[in-house]
This record gives sequence, C-alpha cells and structure tokens, in this order.
Amino acid sequence: MVDRQEIIHQLASPGTSKMVLLVLDGIGDLPVDGTPKGKTGFTPLMTANTTNLDTIARESELGQTIPVLTGITPGSGPGHLSLFGYDPLRYEIGRGILEALGIDVEVGEKDLVARGNFCTLEGDIVVDRRAGRPSTEENIEVCKIINSAIQMIEDVDVRVIPGKEHRFVLKLTGEGLDDHLSDADPQRTGIPYLLTKPLNDSSEKAARVINTFLKRLQVLLKDQPKLNFGLIRGFSRYPDIPNFNEVNHFRSACIATYPMYKGIAKLVGMDVLEGAGTIAEEFDLLERHYEAYDFFYVHIKKTDSYGEDGNFEAKASVVEEVDKEIPRLLALDPDVIAVTGDHSTPCVMKAHSWHPVPFMIRSQYCRKGVSTAFDETQSALGTLGTFPAVDVMTLIMAHAMRLDKYGA
Amino acid sequence: MVDRQEIIHQLASPGTSKMVLLVLDGIGDLPVDGTPKGKTGFTPLMTANTTNLDTIARESELGQTIPVLTGITPGSGPGHLSLFGYDPLRYEIGRGILEALGIDVEVGEKDLVARGNFCTLEGDIVVDRRAGRPSTEENIEVCKIINSAIQMIEDVDVRVIPGKEHRFVLKLTGEGLDDHLSDADPQRTGIPYLLTKPLNDSSEKAARVINTFLKRLQVLLKDQPKLNFGLIRGFSRYPDIPNFNEVNHFRSACIATYPMYKGIAKLVGMDVLEGAGTIAEEFDLLERHYEAYDFFYVHIKKTDSYGEDGNFEAKASVVEEVDKEIPRLLALDPDVIAVTGDHSTPCVMKAHSWHPVPFMIRSQYCRKGVSTAFDETQSALGTLGTFPAVDVMTLIMAHAMRLDKYGA
Repeated sequence: MVDRQEIIHQLASPGTSKMVLLVLDGIGDLPVDGTPKGKTGFTPLMTANTTNLDTIARESELGQTIPVLTGITPGSGPGHLSLFGYDPLRYEIGRGILEALGIDVEVGEKDLVARGNFCTLEGDIVVDRRAGRPSTEENIEVCKIINSAIQMIEDVDVRVIPGKEHRFVLKLTGEGLDDHLSDADPQRTGIPYLLTKPLNDSSEKAARVINTFLKRLQVLLKDQPKLNFGLIRGFSRYPDIPNFNEVNHFRSACIATYPMYKGIAKLVGMDVLEGAGTIAEEFDLLERHYEAYDFFYVHIKKTDSYGEDGNFEAKASVVEEVDKEIPRLLALDPDVIAVTGDHSTPCVMKAHSWHPVPFMIRSQYCRKGVSTAFDETQSALGTLGTFPAVDVMTLIMAHAMRLDKYGA
Repeated sequence: MVDRQEIIHQLASPGTSKMVLLVLDGIGDLPVDGTPKGKTGFTPLMTANTTNLDTIARESELGQTIPVLTGITPGSGPGHLSLFGYDPLRYEIGRGILEALGIDVEVGEKDLVARGNFCTLEGDIVVDRRAGRPSTEENIEVCKIINSAIQMIEDVDVRVIPGKEHRFVLKLTGEGLDDHLSDADPQRTGIPYLLTKPLNDSSEKAARVINTFLKRLQVLLKDQPKLNFGLIRGFSRYPDIPNFNEVNHFRSACIATYPMYKGIAKLVGMDVLEGAGTIAEEFDLLERHYEAYDFFYVHIKKTDSYGEDGNFEAKASVVEEVDKEIPRLLALDPDVIAVTGDHSTPCVMKAHSWHPVPFMIRSQYCRKGVSTAFDETQSALGTLGTFPAVDVMTLIMAHAMRLDKYGA
C-alpha cells in the first residue's frame, strides 16, 4: 500500500507560500423547487448571492471530492481526516475521542476515553438507558459526586466530564491502557448492565480499571433517584496519526468556532487559534495570525447545522455571510485558496450524505477559464473532475510549490 | 494488492490488431494571456493549428490522466512507467539508471550503476563539487585515464562513462552487486569526501568494490589540477520489471530520438528502432517497421524541451509539426491510436508539473461525438473523465480487442 504521508514527507519542503483551506461544513446539497431566486433546481449554494466566491471560481480549477468512498456518508471525523490528507479507512478517530473533543475535553497520548450515558438501574437491570433525560445541571451535579469520590484506580487517573443531558465522557489517564475493549452497554433495557471485556491480552489492565470503576459507581450512586449508573462505550485511545506539520514541513493553524473541529485539528498537530465566535471573528483571527503560519484551516460550522435542521434559507444565508468576508481573504492574497466541505448535508435529508462535495482551488498555476460560479453543478463539471478528498492536501501543497518532483 | 501485470497477462491474447501510442512529452500546459491567436486563456495545444489531431479527437474518447498521484509532479521515469502500465509507486527506475540511459549507456541485469560528479579535493576535503565545471572534452580525457588504469576490482568489471561537463556514470558489472548503498557524496564543500556504506548485508560486496575504486581513484588522479576525484550517488540496479511484451502478449517497438526514452523502453522490453533524428523521421520508422510489430510507442521530445524553456510559441509549433505528420499515421490505419503525454510541462512554470495530462483514444469502439479538439479543456471535460495514467495500456489493449472478459 502507498504510504501517502511518507511520500509527501519525502517530497515536501519548507517555503514562504501561504495556503488557506476554507471548509464550509456540509456545504454540498441537493436541488429543490421554489427557492427564493424563484427558480427550480437550485441548491443553497446556487441560491446564495456569492459574488466573491464566484470571482474566485473564475480564477480556479473546480472539481468535486469523495470524502471516503463513493456512496459512503462520512462522519465529521473521517470527513476531516480526508481533507487533511489522511486515508480515513486507515486512520480512525474513535467515537470516544470525538465525543471528548465535542465537549472540549483535551485528549493526550496517555488517555483512554469513552462516551457514557447516565442510566437508571433497578438492581442490576437497566430500566432507562438515558436516566429520564436529566437536565445538564443534574448531570453536572452527579459528575461532581463521582469525581470527588473516585479519583484514582490502581495507578490510573479517573475522571468523568459532563456533556449535555444524560451524556458524559469517561477519561482514564495512565500507562498501558489499551482500547481493545467491548462496550459496557447492553444497548437495551430490561436486562442487566454489562462490564467491559478485554479483547486482547494488553487490554486487561484497562478492563480491570473500568470494571472497578463501574462497581464503585453502582455503590456510590445507589441512592440517586434517576442517574444511578453509567453505560460506557466507544473506548478509544489517542490515535496514532503522523503529525500534520511534520508530514508537510510547515506550520499550520486551525480557526474554528466549535470544540470538535478544534479537537480534530489539534489531534493531527495543528495549532488552534482561539477567540472566534462568529464568522467575521474567524477572519479576524486569520488576519491577526497570518504571518505566523504557512497553512490555515478555517472551519465554518453553520452551513452544516442548518443543513441538519433542513433550513435551506438559513444555510444559504450562512454562505452569504462567508462570501461577505471573502474580500478580507483575497486582500491577504494567499498563494493557494481552496474552498470545499468535509461532506454534503442536504437540507431535504436533514443529515450528512454521501454526495460528492464541491471543491475549488485558486493559485497562479490554474487551468482556469471553464467555471464561472462555485456550486454543485459547476464543481461536478469542473476541470478537476471527481476525486478523493484525501488528494486535497497534495493538490494544495502542489499549487503552493511545496512538493518536489517524484522520480527523475 | 492488485497485480495489474498479472491480470493483463491472464486476459491478454495475441492478435493482428495494431496500436500506436503517441507520446508528446510534457504536452499539458496552462492557459496564458495574449497568445498568437489573440485570445486569452489559451495553451500551446489550443494555440497550435491542429487540424489532423482535432480530426482524431472527433472520432475519439477524451480524458485526462494522473501520472502518479493527484498533485504529484512526475519525473520522466515514473511518467513513462505509468503509461506502459506499471504502477510508478511500485516499480522504480533508479537515478543512476536514468542517468546512464540519458547518455546512452546500456544497462543489463548484472549491472550496478550510479551517477557521478568529478570534483576537486584538497587533501580529503571537497573544495568544488563540480571541479570548476570542466569542458566535456576534459571529462572525456579523465575518463580515459581511469578506464585504462582501473578495469577490474575483485571479479567486478569497472567502467566510467563521461557525460556532459562534470558528470559521469559509474558502471559495475558482476555477480552479487546489491544497490542498497549510501551515497558516496557529502553534498557540500568544505568537508571530507565520503565512502559508501552498505545498507544491508547483501550490499557489502558492492560497497567494498566501490570504496576500493574510490581509494584508487584518489591516488590515480592526485596530480590532476581540477578533476581529481569523484562523488558518486544514486546507486541503482537494473529494475525487476515484468517484460512488457510478455505481459501483453505482443511485439512492441519504441520510436524516439533521445537516449533516455529509448532506454526506458528497452528496460521494459521493447525493441528500439534506431535512425530517427526528426519528427518526420520518426514517422518514417513507423511506416518502415509497421508490419513487424503490434504496438508502437512514438515519443516526441521537443514539446517538453520547449516547455522547460518557457517557449510557448516553439512548443505550439512542435505540436503543429507533429500534426503535419498525422495523415501518415492515419494512412496506416492502426486499430488503436492513443495520444497523450507523460506529464505536463507548463511554459509559465518552465518545469514538469502535477497537472493532469490530455489523453485521447481512437478505435472503432469509441463513444465519440462529444469532443471536437485535442486540448486540456476538452480532455478535462471528455467522456473518459480523469483517470490514472497507469490505466492507459489496459484501455489501449481493450480497444485493440486484445483482452478477454474477466470472470464468467
């Protein structure tokens, strides 16, 4: 198998060129009838007034990307890994890690994390897998009780971090914690809770610690009315991913407003620039830190959020909000601008989908002149054709003149 | 992993059909403003008057190829291996081999070759890595001295072959010469010269012979004013590549004007037809030997050379020169005509690039009717889409009706 990171590491060299990868989360969509432009067959991207993105499109090569495999709908983890050049079928960010990143829990190399539900037990029987959907405040209270009572098991630090409603993250920190563990979750009610089982020899220690934790939890919470136990699944260690900066011989920064995306960026080795709550503030950060980095990953969340809500007009208006900031990006005049999404989130589906994702790249080395706007159709008919999202970084690095020739 | 050569070998069968693969080296380019046609956004291929190539395009399927990986700029070795159907990430032609082929040195299965620089030493210190850029005549003189003094070390034949200016090729012929060797080149001046080191057990003999050669070279040339030592790197053995004719069950011939391309063709097993110095003479050879072979690889060098020079008009005029000979190709009426390049060499970049390469294939089994000209844009928008160059041979063989069905 080709080791993409190894090849790029060998061919890449440092330089002064600047690259900006602007990710409009879930940007790809499906055409619907009766949009605000009064035409049928328009997507939010076609509907939005995108003068500035379209200006970029005229100077760009367009194409559409396949995040994982044709027909496969990616989660945020695989979608972003691809964009950063990591084969998402080879590298995986475990569900526990993603849950932790989503509530802004830092995950390091000695950590084993898992996602948990507070549940209600009667005896050993699970009677409610979500403990009656408690308020987040109730959740926080119970987590406090747990963290003051249970801090260390063997030589392992143990901590629970509250999420929303019934959700929490379990984080273990210590040596020799392997994540090959079965879920400690029976997945339905009316049957006894489950302990975890080690799935290989090296996960025995982790299993022992987790099961000790669960036993102590049952005793500790036995008088709580609803939240009296935890179901734990998706055990995952810090993933073994080649460092993004080392692979590409550059300094990279992430600009995002949501913890999960900052977390994924941090996992691969990017610096995370803090302080942005709005799209305009994200472009503030880009301007402020522009000199310090070679590569910027700028993440726009709300295109996906409104896609998941099925809110076509709101999704289009987020695109317009981004478009309004584009002159600030153009004023910086980066050597390479790439605009795309991590997957499609069609409003009519209210969910991520497998549809290819619009992509455009602008540099002085473009076969421009074919496309006039940035949207699904022009991307599908663009000069780059349909290609794996995992090729995006190589293409950006090539246009930034950062890759040597392969072979003589 | 799919063994492409194995699959094709199983499915291919001999036949009477004729195939011509016309390779315009570095043909892909970028659009520039103010071309001779007075339009903006034209490439040399769009600018050139190509009535005959466009006639083929109207009867062809067009597409664009990725030589190695998206964003990766190929050298001539990987570019051609792909076109001949060999995965360039699996099969590699070492730098020493390419250097040897480039100055018309034959390389056989028992040979170990490397590229060398004559340099100037003071004591053991390298003071000039290029020996003051000697004339090729000086180089030839010193090579004569070496070849008369050093002919055999242990049971290994030793020979140096002069290249241009300071460059030479070292060729060792014997049994058990492994090429896992470190470069005998400190890569900078002001520090002592280096011997080679064996990088595994089986390369010890080769290292011993090379280092004996270097020691004797230092003594032999100690009174030469400038060219008094050699730096040697890129040790490479004859690559282990399945034979092109055996894989495809056919007889193939190479028509080229430059040694390196003849050399690559010979490496994979093609017959090399000698005698052409011009493009017209290449078509003479094609006509003369047309009955004797099934498959012809015809290589046009100057499209790449002028691309590397940044000479847009000259590149366009080479395309026109080729176009003028196309009626002779059409008169032979081969079953399959494929026209493409081994990579792009945009004039504005004066170098090989990663951009996809225009491709067209004509046979009586084409989904023709979409494209009207052979250029970058029509190729990008062609019915074949964007595809790996390593698929070109399978496509040619299919259109030649040389491949059986896969599976029942």
